[in-house]
Amino acid sequence: MAPRNSGAPPSGKAVAWTTCLTSIKPNEILVRGYRLDDLMGRMNFGEAIYLLLTGEAAPPSVGRLMEAMLVAFIDHGVTPPSTLAARNVATTGASTRGAVAAGVLGFGPHHGGDALACRTLLDEGLQLNSGGISMTEAATRLVDRLTKSGEIPPPGYGHRYHTIDPRATRLLQIAHELEVDHAYTQLLRAIEHALTQHPSLAGRPLPINIDGAIAAVCGDMGLPPEVADALLIISRVPGLAAHALEEQRREAPMRVINPTSGTYDGPAERPVPGRRK
Amino acid sequence: MAPRNSGAPPSGKAVAWTTCLTSIKPNEILVRGYRLDDLMGRMNFGEAIYLLLTGEAAPPSVGRLMEAMLVAFIDHGVTPPSTLAARNVATTGASTRGAVAAGVLGFGPHHGGDALACRTLLDEGLQLNSGGISMTEAATRLVDRLTKSGEIPPPGYGHRYHTIDPRATRLLQIAHELEVDHAYTQLLRAIEHALTQHPSLAGRPLPINIDGAIAAVCGDMGLPPEVADALLIISRVPGLAAHALEEQRREAPMRVINPTSGTYDGPAERPVPGRRK
Amino acid sequence: MAPRNSGAPPSGKAVAWTTCLTSIKPNEILVRGYRLDDLMGRMNFGEAIYLLLTGEAAPPSVGRLMEAMLVAFIDHGVTPPSTLAARNVATTGASTRGAVAAGVLGFGPHHGGDALACRTLLDEGLQLNSGGISMTEAATRLVDRLTKSGEIPPPGYGHRYHTIDPRATRLLQIAHELEVDHAYTQLLRAIEHALTQHPSLAGRPLPINIDGAIAAVCGDMGLPPEVADALLIISRVPGLAAHALEEQRREAPMRVINPTSGTYDGPAERPVPGRRK
Amino acid sequence: MAPRNSGAPPSGKAVAWTTCLTSIKPNEILVRGYRLDDLMGRMNFGEAIYLLLTGEAAPPSVGRLMEAMLVAFIDHGVTPPSTLAARNVATTGASTRGAVAAGVLGFGPHHGGDALACRTLLDEGLQLNSGGISMTEAATRLVDRLTKSGEIPPPGYGHRYHTIDPRATRLLQIAHELEVDHAYTQLLRAIEHALTQHPSLAGRPLPINIDGAIAAVCGDMGLPPEVADALLIISRVPGLAAHALEEQRREAPMRVINPTSGTYDGPAERPVPGRRK
Repeated sequence: MAPRNSGAPPSGKAVAWTTCLTSIKPNEILVRGYRLDDLMGRMNFGEAIYLLLTGEAAPPSVGRLMEAMLVAFIDHGVTPPSTLAARNVATTGASTRGAVAAGVLGFGPHHGGDALACRTLLDEGLQLNSGGISMTEAATRLVDRLTKSGEIPPPGYGHRYHTIDPRATRLLQIAHELEVDHAYTQLLRAIEHALTQHPSLAGRPLPINIDGAIAAVCGDMGLPPEVADALLIISRVPGLAAHALEEQRREAPMRVINPTSGTYDGPAERPVPGRRK
Repeated sequence: MAPRNSGAPPSGKAVAWTTCLTSIKPNEILVRGYRLDDLMGRMNFGEAIYLLLTGEAAPPSVGRLMEAMLVAFIDHGVTPPSTLAARNVATTGASTRGAVAAGVLGFGPHHGGDALACRTLLDEGLQLNSGGISMTEAATRLVDRLTKSGEIPPPGYGHRYHTIDPRATRLLQIAHELEVDHAYTQLLRAIEHALTQHPSLAGRPLPINIDGAIAAVCGDMGLPPEVADALLIISRVPGLAAHALEEQRREAPMRVINPTSGTYDGPAERPVPGRRK
Repeated sequence: MAPRNSGAPPSGKAVAWTTCLTSIKPNEILVRGYRLDDLMGRMNFGEAIYLLLTGEAAPPSVGRLMEAMLVAFIDHGVTPPSTLAARNVATTGASTRGAVAAGVLGFGPHHGGDALACRTLLDEGLQLNSGGISMTEAATRLVDRLTKSGEIPPPGYGHRYHTIDPRATRLLQIAHELEVDHAYTQLLRAIEHALTQHPSLAGRPLPINIDGAIAAVCGDMGLPPEVADALLIISRVPGLAAHALEEQRREAPMRVINPTSGTYDGPAERPVPGRRK
Repeated sequence: MAPRNSGAPPSGKAVAWTTCLTSIKPNEILVRGYRLDDLMGRMNFGEAIYLLLTGEAAPPSVGRLMEAMLVAFIDHGVTPPSTLAARNVATTGASTRGAVAAGVLGFGPHHGGDALACRTLLDEGLQLNSGGISMTEAATRLVDRLTKSGEIPPPGYGHRYHTIDPRATRLLQIAHELEVDHAYTQLLRAIEHALTQHPSLAGRPLPINIDGAIAAVCGDMGLPPEVADALLIISRVPGLAAHALEEQRREAPMRVINPTSGTYDGPAERPVPGRRK
């Protein structure tokens, strides 16, 4: 009978199963075949995340792109609902992990979901392209469909706050420098261009946003959509933890958190200390 | 009146508040004063985590130690209860983020809590040391107290599975190479030595485990205990996500997950591809 | 622009909004228009849940059916993945609320989701019925479609453990006694009958299970599908809390929880103390 | 070795364990020894919760008090941080169960924790009383200590919004009518009186609040503190679900939720439909 059920008890037999992630033997931990102690000091955290999620070590250029992508999404201030969920938990005196868990739950189709939706859009266009239609023509067809069905802005384009999303611009630039920009990125740009050309959108700028850039870059790195989706969560967890810790340290407990009355009092803009270009 | 209350409605006034983490202006995102797009490609993810949580960019040696520490805790196979919580959620067809959130909740005083408890122990010993007592003598006093009160193994020492925790050995080695091993690490080793010398523990090896190594290394990096605690969660989230994704891909839904019948079928041991020593 | 976005900061204006659930004034709390202190002692918890979720007080028969339905789903032993998620969190020494939250996350399409899927099926059949097709014929058509598409067992029918789900039988009996069994229940039974008649299912009993009974009963009480779905979570939370508390009290911390080796050692079967038939 | 560990793999043996909550056999479910189908229609949900958590059926008066207590805490409007955590998750389009889980995490020492803290205070006073000191004198001593140590308001007294908490008044009245008010309730009132008499608190009313009433009533029902704590969570879950559903239905996705600009637009005050006094 199908597994669709109410959690009824099993037959009693312990069923053997396997994992290809991590092997634990006395004094020996293998992650995807590599000794964990060998990885330490030889792979950075972002590269190890890539290895754990994909099964293979990233080529150097892909590793650097992973790091940049993870940094890009690390935090976005006090107003995202995921951050507010984490802060509302933290103000009650609950644990940091409770606040982080609530923040993780505060991602949904409308928040962080655009990367996945944009990936679906790009996959649709690349399907057309592999059927012999040019990138430009595929982009035009997609934009025609989207404008007709009222799906404007398309996922991955436009931002309610930024007119140019600085994270998207920089991520695509890094992908280009590292020569990891392939078909997904090409189509992402072709759609952006088709949007500017569409008569019904005249004067309405819909530039690539960070969700779109991440969708395309993950596609060009060969990551499946569900892995790209998991990376978004992984990349924002440090931000959620930082907000929980700040709430605990700086604010009175049980305060009413008004998202629109929080302002930044950190350091003014300063140059990144040089270590590596 | 004190904030101790049942969540009653507020006075109605929106109270201004501040954050020193991230500033959001149109087309400009500052994290701790640095333009986020400037950080991308110049800081790795682990270094950006350090910046976000502490407020300052890590010196290069500290940055490399951070990366190694985050890698050390990235996964530990299928049996930790946090991983089982995540897999039990994933087997129901729930979302990856729901599984990750449940996994984050699956850390408690007895799982991941030893790093914090070990830090408290080390702080107690360093207090003695700063009062004029030698490290060796401070370690002996701590071990005397712990054996008398039955707190054996102390937090940070011994492992139910590994007799030598390879992650701990390697992390302390890296800290030494990078010259970030200071008083915390010195005391951690002194306690390990005092444990081997204590008559009541003859023949019972209690080597430093990964929780102890992380506690000391975070102490020597100058990280407050609550930041070190948050880093544990951050470092394991990729592992939780990887198990959730594997559960979704490889297993039938609504299976009964028997933790002791899961075995590793990933690649056999292989050398880490050389890129940086 | 559409709300599809990355959690960017708002315009700064506080937007007024409303709730029709609960009014809080000094010394006066109204739930759906009733003074909360007036409800206390006059409505039972199950009736108050109905009021809060639907906006109106339940007629007495509906109130009694609500109570029976909430009791029906209160617990189902140690093997459901939601319960295992809660226990795996509790074994780490984490808080009861952390364990309950993880348990709540451990409901997904394959666990508890059948009630919603069965409701969709029943709504499809009732649509046919309101178009002039008899219940019997509508049931036959649905079963034909399901067998052809391989969706056997259909959601709401069959159980991997019980051949007769005692909760389903009793819930439908109570609904009948209280005269709250209408079109949904009638169709639920018609489909069960059509399943027994279908040649391809000869000798394969697919009796109504608790998910099916709840789906139909909620339909006949006039509850929207999403409210019925929320009731499942509400009804199981006491079970999740009970397992978390039992884990804390009776088991050693950080144990490896093997779902198939847990057995019942509570009281043997005993009659319910008479108080109300 | 102690269970304090990092989740290392087990010895491989499946360890047998027991549960006294629920027995699952084919076609027979026993909850604490009672057939679940026998309980349905004979116990209300609140009574079944009492049974599941304590192991025994509640006497009728205790059952009615349980129902009243669960109703008392069912919701408290839009401003509690637990509710805001749930709504911030719901606004992203995440699932109802994700929103409920985040809400459950939004209880902490400062929110819902007062019932537990008040219980500790009452236990301390009853310890004095059982040593031969009168209730009045025990209350005076506790208030002296609390004022000296600055712990004013004590847990269970005062409210930042209500000067008289209508839920507390009513719950204590019902306990009195049902003759379930014993030593805990007596001491709760004695402390309230001692607070009014204390010179340093002149003119500062600190009436019993709902947390205090719940703490005393649970004590007099014989519930252990951790069970009382679990009941708070159980009783508020319907409120969290109701807010999540309302957010999904009535509001645009990804809105910025300002807790101080939400107002009630439900029915005006109306009498509770008579069914049982």
